[in-house]
Amino acid sequence: MKFNNSPIGIFDSGLGGLTVFKEIRKILPFEDLIYFGDTARVPYGNKSKETIIKYSSEILGFLTDKGIKIAIVACNTSSSWALDYLRKISPVPVFGVIEPGAQKAVEVSLNISGRKIIAVIGTSATVKSGAYSKTIKEKAALLYGVKKSEKVNISNTDFNGFNENLEIIEKSCPLFVPLVEEGFLNEEITKNVIKYYLASVIKEKPACLVLGCTHYPILKDFIEKEIGDDTEIIDSGVETARSVKNYLEEFGMLKSGTESGNEIFFVSDDSERFKELGGKFLGRPIDNVYVVNFS
Amino acid sequence: MKFNNSPIGIFDSGLGGLTVFKEIRKILPFEDLIYFGDTARVPYGNKSKETIIKYSSEILGFLTDKGIKIAIVACNTSSSWALDYLRKISPVPVFGVIEPGAQKAVEVSLNISGRKIIAVIGTSATVKSGAYSKTIKEKAALLYGVKKSEKVNISNTDFNGFNENLEIIEKSCPLFVPLVEEGFLNEEITKNVIKYYLASVIKEKPACLVLGCTHYPILKDFIEKEIGDDTEIIDSGVETARSVKNYLEEFGMLKSGTESGNEIFFVSDDSERFKELGGKFLGRPIDNVYVVNFS
Repeated sequence: MKFNNSPIGIFDSGLGGLTVFKEIRKILPFEDLIYFGDTARVPYGNKSKETIIKYSSEILGFLTDKGIKIAIVACNTSSSWALDYLRKISPVPVFGVIEPGAQKAVEVSLNISGRKIIAVIGTSATVKSGAYSKTIKEKAALLYGVKKSEKVNISNTDFNGFNENLEIIEKSCPLFVPLVEEGFLNEEITKNVIKYYLASVIKEKPACLVLGCTHYPILKDFIEKEIGDDTEIIDSGVETARSVKNYLEEFGMLKSGTESGNEIFFVSDDSERFKELGGKFLGRPIDNVYVVNFS
Repeated sequence: MKFNNSPIGIFDSGLGGLTVFKEIRKILPFEDLIYFGDTARVPYGNKSKETIIKYSSEILGFLTDKGIKIAIVACNTSSSWALDYLRKISPVPVFGVIEPGAQKAVEVSLNISGRKIIAVIGTSATVKSGAYSKTIKEKAALLYGVKKSEKVNISNTDFNGFNENLEIIEKSCPLFVPLVEEGFLNEEITKNVIKYYLASVIKEKPACLVLGCTHYPILKDFIEKEIGDDTEIIDSGVETARSVKNYLEEFGMLKSGTESGNEIFFVSDDSERFKELGGKFLGRPIDNVYVVNFS
């Protein structure tokens, strides 16, 4: 089928989404991938909901014009604020990075007896949106409900009862993105900043810690050392890639053939940074970068 | 004269320019001031020259439509890349923040015998532009030439001879802006980051250190402690305010009357952050904030 051989569109406010791109490429080696980084307007983290929806819609339009079969919003801020709107206007299925991470967190917490604590770290905008808490509670309602065979009343506002043992801690770590973009400076500063942000989280001994920003997987080794072995680190990018793969399999939408997939990158501002730093995010050089001017 | 009672326009990519606004207000208490913060597209620091010129031109147009008598580009990145272009298209005089800081640095270095070292810290984009080095060399050529009554050949490329004892160190400190916007986190981290960036600068014992980013005055006390008494810290905002005041006096353009000046703030994205953090930058609450949508 011709449509199945259409590319997958992946977009982010900048280059953070490349960590998601990398995971997609890892488990879907034959798919053609189109990446869009909104480098002229990065970051979205401190912009209003209206502006984030406007920018995200423009990019989705650009990608659907390119004939993508599905779109992945590889940006937590945009997934928090714009996903519902994008799904309404999109002619193709749209995936965010929050649901897969939330789902995995709930699955991990299922094995914990007693008080289940899920920690999420992200940008100020993502934390402020409350999207992770809301999504985790929804997923928990479904999953706990099924597992316990309880009578489940799914509503967005009332999850008390079956959720009473579930606690969600959301913590914003706004300095992590600049740290990563600076190449983590030196080890002592990175360690101190991580310690500073995570102190209150570590104290609660969470079952898992969701990396709720696409930049954070780059700091994963440092974070792992701080948080200890009893807390599982959940990489939204890994979970999103898995859930996209499952979807494509389920609906028979995988690309046919076993040739390596093509890749093309678009940015809204010509930036050497995208190639330089993006190469570090992907773990290999980036070619095929084209500039698109929106306004 | 009616024109003299027109407002002064001040703009920045975000809220950093408020440190310049504050200095202007301090020494020009009767002037009406219009501030524009491009909060929808902040930061400019990692955008291309073309994009920075485009954004800056749009804002200049917005401000001149409001009938300003002069414009101040209170953003080092925009002053580095867009000032020449803005001056070409502007119907009113345009001031940047680089020339006044550079001028002051050269004046300070005049009193140093032997090797004169001027240090400049700024964002990656400002340092990459080389605008401070170029401007300092130009100002030095003029000032040293006059002071020494030497035969001066002013060219942008060759300042050897009379500039041979002048050395300029430019150092980018990309983590300073997020540190400030985070409320400096805690003292230890701030101290470590400043130490990390300034180590190579301090070693050279510069005559002065130019704060080449409008966010940096907020860190001035910390920087002062690190750099020691022998290095004078130059605040571009203070120098810009002085040079604007001199200009208005010289050309008889000061506002008449002794009523406190009016103030109005425009932003391109509705951001609570602008009010919250901006209040800290100004040292008092900000009212009168209006949103303008460009694209």
